Amino acid sequence: MVGWSRDRADAVEALRRGAITDLADTPERTARGAALVVLAVPPGPTLELLGRLRPWLAADAILSDVASVKREVVARACREGLADRFAGAHPLAGTHATGFSAARPDMFDGAICYVCPTGSPGGGQAAHGVAGFWREVMGAEPVLIDAATHDEQLAWTSHLPQAVASALAVALAERGLQGVSYGPGGRDTTRLAASDPALWTDILLQNREAVLQALAAMGGSLARLAALVEAQDPGALRDFLGQGATFRRGIDR
Amino acid sequence: MVGWSRDRADAVEALRRGAITDLADTPERTARGAALVVLAVPPGPTLELLGRLRPWLAADAILSDVASVKREVVARACREGLADRFAGAHPLAGTHATGFSAARPDMFDGAICYVCPTGSPGGGQAAHGVAGFWREVMGAEPVLIDAATHDEQLAWTSHLPQAVASALAVALAERGLQGVSYGPGGRDTTRLAASDPALWTDILLQNREAVLQALAAMGGSLARLAALVEAQDPGALRDFLGQGATFRRGIDR
Repeated sequence: MVGWSRDRADAVEALRRGAITDLADTPERTARGAALVVLAVPPGPTLELLGRLRPWLAADAILSDVASVKREVVARACREGLADRFAGAHPLAGTHATGFSAARPDMFDGAICYVCPTGSPGGGQAAHGVAGFWREVMGAEPVLIDAATHDEQLAWTSHLPQAVASALAVALAERGLQGVSYGPGGRDTTRLAASDPALWTDILLQNREAVLQALAAMGGSLARLAALVEAQDPGALRDFLGQGATFRRGIDR
Repeated sequence: MVGWSRDRADAVEALRRGAITDLADTPERTARGAALVVLAVPPGPTLELLGRLRPWLAADAILSDVASVKREVVARACREGLADRFAGAHPLAGTHATGFSAARPDMFDGAICYVCPTGSPGGGQAAHGVAGFWREVMGAEPVLIDAATHDEQLAWTSHLPQAVASALAVALAERGLQGVSYGPGGRDTTRLAASDPALWTDILLQNREAVLQALAAMGGSLARLAALVEAQDPGALRDFLGQGATFRRGIDR
């Protein structure tokens, strides 16, 4: 298992701890001769690496990625002539933290991992291989989904929560309270805001249309809540909060 | 330590587990003869119990509460003639869950507990007693603050995150995605939405003016984020997300 990271110290630590067995100097050298190449970088660099690594891939190699937004990545793989050898992946795991220090041996245990086929005849085989990797090597639960459906769904389940956490953190930052405690609730609700800004810039822009729809719905929901508080209508306010509570209790199963 | 709960089974469980040593049939019987009476109910019932328990309090008894909003509670205590015997309290601990099953022996260890004096000469003594209870018996870190400052601050640090989590949960509920996974980020950002709707109806309405200001700021922040996504401006979007990330990383210290 050969690894490469932009952050050399991270790659060395991954080697030292046995997460990889060899270290390459460049992404190209990592790809050369590999049976499976996984790009674990933000969506922007993922697009760039697809073209850059193509000439270095072995004839029967499978290429995949882990970006949180899949439509542009899958489309680019097809444009690069990789339709039969690429399948996108997106494991729902991890936190706002990045780098090897945020890695955990059990991070993917039982986690959903979306796998997006390119839609070409040979792409099904690549998706099968990628799903097998996530199930058998990483312990995740692969779920096949097409890239457009994935992005539309994730706009709501992941990209909107991230955008909301960031917008809340900015509102709090601008309020400028000093030396106050935010308590467990305020910290949980803003946790995602600590995520890598460059990574999320790529995600939000690559899923722009769907994210804008989700943001508009959130703006509407927030405005309705404000109107209920303004109107001092306890019954309707309780119903609104109750609708959110029923939903939230439901997603823990 | 005598306890009473609206939920009899909860009170019995608290007795059985040693959290209280005796059980009263009514709030009035709990109050009679006690040196310290703590109302641990939502803000609405807190206001009601202040008047109802007053005749039953021993001459040197101290009365307190744990509501997340303090101005109306302190004002009502003063109107009930309890200015010298009341101090409000608000421990920043716990989760969205309620009832004895959500209790933990170490829940208050090291947690901030705001203590709001009534402002009367004798009220300082009561606040001293309440702070001592939270420090010595509950292991929390009491912080004296006046009720108006508390409510203005908590509108941002706690009530706004709660409102945002609820509004996000309602937006997601109305989108109506079935059988999808929300991942750790989506679950954290909406966690507070599972809180008791009746409790939060009281809190949001008792802190209405400050909450509306905070909601307006959040609406503005969300609209700015949407405009940056709409404009496809990666630099400005990264700056916005970066402002949120810097803030969020800062509040973990």
